[in-house]
Amino acid sequence: MTLLLGVDNGGTRVKLLLARDAGGRLEHVRTADAPTPRGIGAMDELAAITRGFLGDDRADAFGITVAGIFDEASGAVVTSANMRWLEGLAPARELSDRLGIPGVVVQDGVATAIAEAVLGAGRGADDVFVLALGTGIAGAHVVDGAVRKGAHGGAGEIGHIATGRGEKCTCGQSGCLESLLGGTRLGARWDRARGVHAQSTAVDVVHGAERGDESARAVLDEATSALANGLLSVMAMIDPGVIVIGGGLSNSPEWIIDPAVDKARRQATFHAIPPIVRAELGSWAGAWGAVLAAEQRVGDALRLEHT
Amino acid sequence: MTLLLGVDNGGTRVKLLLARDAGGRLEHVRTADAPTPRGIGAMDELAAITRGFLGDDRADAFGITVAGIFDEASGAVVTSANMRWLEGLAPARELSDRLGIPGVVVQDGVATAIAEAVLGAGRGADDVFVLALGTGIAGAHVVDGAVRKGAHGGAGEIGHIATGRGEKCTCGQSGCLESLLGGTRLGARWDRARGVHAQSTAVDVVHGAERGDESARAVLDEATSALANGLLSVMAMIDPGVIVIGGGLSNSPEWIIDPAVDKARRQATFHAIPPIVRAELGSWAGAWGAVLAAEQRVGDALRLEHT
Ligand SMILES: [Zn+2]
Ligand SMILES: [Zn+2]
Repeated sequence: MTLLLGVDNGGTRVKLLLARDAGGRLEHVRTADAPTPRGIGAMDELAAITRGFLGDDRADAFGITVAGIFDEASGAVVTSANMRWLEGLAPARELSDRLGIPGVVVQDGVATAIAEAVLGAGRGADDVFVLALGTGIAGAHVVDGAVRKGAHGGAGEIGHIATGRGEKCTCGQSGCLESLLGGTRLGARWDRARGVHAQSTAVDVVHGAERGDESARAVLDEATSALANGLLSVMAMIDPGVIVIGGGLSNSPEWIIDPAVDKARRQATFHAIPPIVRAELGSWAGAWGAVLAAEQRVGDALRLEHT
Repeated sequence: MTLLLGVDNGGTRVKLLLARDAGGRLEHVRTADAPTPRGIGAMDELAAITRGFLGDDRADAFGITVAGIFDEASGAVVTSANMRWLEGLAPARELSDRLGIPGVVVQDGVATAIAEAVLGAGRGADDVFVLALGTGIAGAHVVDGAVRKGAHGGAGEIGHIATGRGEKCTCGQSGCLESLLGGTRLGARWDRARGVHAQSTAVDVVHGAERGDESARAVLDEATSALANGLLSVMAMIDPGVIVIGGGLSNSPEWIIDPAVDKARRQATFHAIPPIVRAELGSWAGAWGAVLAAEQRVGDALRLEHT
């Protein structure tokens, strides 16, 4: 029996998930989480947390997520906006040296998307597009359990399809989906519409709309139309077998997501409309994705031994 | 030595191309074309044309293009807007029965895209996005020599990414790339801008712009911006290694295409800008794609024999 460890090393919490591979089926053994170790000594502290979590169990391999960009060849973190102390380190090697277990690093968005596609809401389909609607808008096309990265690692940027109209986006273009739908933009747009400086969040906008505030509803309506167009664009360009929608916004699907799906269904003409479903793994998706990366690492090692 | 026949059965002309497979490299042997046989007896006539073209050469396999939709399992044409007499027929089987050569059918846009990606402007790259700018706007993402069809055969519809603004498109949506950039739309937009009923073509608009007509230039400028956004969307969503631009509009690249590529380069922010090149095979791309389909058919047959 193979034991696999997923370490989702997030900006504020580190999540640990131990799973067992029971003849090709992954089963949950246990989970835990802790504040993310920071700064110098972070890897020693992370190793100590992991040892405590494993106890007498010996994992065959682990996967660790990184919130940032890493070098494919060396596994070293190139940039991590929220975890500067990781830059220049190879987290999988650092942890592997301390634990004596082989490990592999995986980008956190990739881990989340693969987990939802393979184990979560997309399971059973070969071809899944995963949309994460949070502060930013991320997309990932998962085919046969792997994310299609494109020729330069940049594919899936549904949040930044160019329309050339509308608001300036953080990416420098105008009228991106993210400029109308990104979590932080919803609050900013509502504040601007009301002429206040309140630093409202997306949740504030939803509460405003629930109280009947017209300007809050208008902001959500624009976001709804933008998401409907985004869904239709995914169908037109990618034609996936399933679309999975996750991220913070999916916690209040009655605003934006459900009406956008309805709107996309009504606007669809030539499109093949796939099942459009909510993500299922919630905040544990990254850890499950790390487990899947670990599973692949074990599989690769076995294949190497046999050749 | 393997001889392969490509039959590009177009709406007005049928193009024939005989190629030789010289150790994995395809070499041109000869070409010919003739008016496309129509109506009842079309397949007999096509077989006679093909026999005459082959003469004493015996092709090992052929590919035949179809301008329409065919059933993958049976190879029968489901709909062909310009060639109704093909509906219900399986062109590859019909021709195969008459010639005594194994054959395979391939959709004409797929044949063109694969040929440009593998033998034309995209050769050497694993991951090519082919844009065809003609009466309509078609896209195809070719990975390792095969078109990514998506879960329902509908992927690559870059011409119909939804923006929800602008003109009504033939597909029923509003503001599609095709509604601003499609060849027939350019003339119609110019005529409307001038308030005339002239049934102008795209070429007329280009000539108008060359004479300094302001409204013609405005129509081309809008098409240029739309194409620039389309190129940026392909980079964002697909991130291909090469973008190939073909179709009728690519014959006058100084209007629309060259300025759109420049504009996309200037507007790009996070994007990885791949080489953006013009298609090379011109009107023979479909026939070369049929040859590639025939080559794959021969390869599949050999693999079957050896298992
Ligand atoms: Zn953007
Ligand atoms: Zn359209």
